[in-house]
Amino acid sequence: MNIILLHENDFLDSDTVILTDHRKDHIIDVLKAKKNDSLVCGLVNDNIGKGVISNIDSAGIELKVSLDLTPPPPLPLTLILALPRPKMLKRIIESAATLGVKQIYLINSWRVEKSFWQSPVLNNNNLEKILISGLEQAKDTVMPQIFIKKLFTPFVKNELPEISKNSLCITAHPKTNNPCPYSIDQQTSLAIGPEGGFIDLEIETLEQAGFKTVSLGKRILRTETAVPVIISRLFSNYFNL
Amino acid sequence: MNIILLHENDFLDSDTVILTDHRKDHIIDVLKAKKNDSLVCGLVNDNIGKGVISNIDSAGIELKVSLDLTPPPPLPLTLILALPRPKMLKRIIESAATLGVKQIYLINSWRVEKSFWQSPVLNNNNLEKILISGLEQAKDTVMPQIFIKKLFTPFVKNELPEISKNSLCITAHPKTNNPCPYSIDQQTSLAIGPEGGFIDLEIETLEQAGFKTVSLGKRILRTETAVPVIISRLFSNYFNL
Repeated sequence: MNIILLHENDFLDSDTVILTDHRKDHIIDVLKAKKNDSLVCGLVNDNIGKGVISNIDSAGIELKVSLDLTPPPPLPLTLILALPRPKMLKRIIESAATLGVKQIYLINSWRVEKSFWQSPVLNNNNLEKILISGLEQAKDTVMPQIFIKKLFTPFVKNELPEISKNSLCITAHPKTNNPCPYSIDQQTSLAIGPEGGFIDLEIETLEQAGFKTVSLGKRILRTETAVPVIISRLFSNYFNL
Repeated sequence: MNIILLHENDFLDSDTVILTDHRKDHIIDVLKAKKNDSLVCGLVNDNIGKGVISNIDSAGIELKVSLDLTPPPPLPLTLILALPRPKMLKRIIESAATLGVKQIYLINSWRVEKSFWQSPVLNNNNLEKILISGLEQAKDTVMPQIFIKKLFTPFVKNELPEISKNSLCITAHPKTNNPCPYSIDQQTSLAIGPEGGFIDLEIETLEQAGFKTVSLGKRILRTETAVPVIISRLFSNYFNL
């Protein structure tokens, strides 16, 4: 937790915040902060800044906050992921949030096991916790949006062209010789298949929707490795700021 | 498992292999392979190629193998990691192996919790299993080497200069404005700190050993995300092959 994320309802008045939940515990147990210490804070979907501890005891922490800095810029990326297995989903979403992805579509695909759709990880509450954890790592405040699309063909044919309009559209796919672009400065829509990859028919459907297949070379990467590798490659300028 | 990794003692003669362990189960249960099917195979630390199933039953699988292709080239990288917490260590080592890292040093640092050194993950057998799993993902055969160094200062002062000789030496560290280089084609030694980062004295010691601090921007990444992000950034040409 590199930033204490605040919500509107944490505020007593315009600059006073009371924390009584796990954030209080984190400040006391992990940060070992004391009265008058200054902590990095941010308001969800708003500015970041600092909070000075004006009162602290085991019941709660009072902070005087001033939030006058903008959060780090988002990545110009829409991520379209064939639903990964639940354990991986958690890690992938968290790291995508940390990296600055703000739109994530979780879609079906032939090789997505049906049981994955039953996972409690997909509950809104759980997804929000994972996203918050990713933002806390990155010192970001802007909540990513996650959209769940359980039918591949209607989504790719009817919705994806509008979602990906005016963006560079690519599908990461080991079975091609087109190299993945790098150091671009362009709105991008990136589709990544399930373990075992998209099937040929799905690749065709994506191509008809404007998505060009690109490869990362001979090594086949797990989705959790491929996501940071591709993001870093596409947006190398971004990780200089 | 995108390649069946073979060991010398799997061979009955120069081109015949018998599998009776978890690889047999994987071929039957996951790949659902039948007699005369051809599978991607590789000999550890040697060539890759194919194995054709000449006999298959629940007791074992016999393959006729021909291994005439070289494995994917290694990354020109030595990774020096402050020992991560065990759960993360497993994932980081596996993804480093998949990405083609062949030398990994696990070192101590002020912010490494002492208990991490007691983890069973660090046993040679367990490390080898993790590395094999990373290679199986990448269709690679060349086993990475892992070196364990429990004393920071003697290692950095006395051993690291020789290990990193004639290479680009960098420490990934959020508290600097030097941008991390990208698209290089050079032997590189990369040091990455623990959760919370290296302390100032450690950064100084690394600088005296020739390691320049570089940053990936405002977002602070977990080690498991930072490793693929930095590797992809440094070796973007490599992920085109």
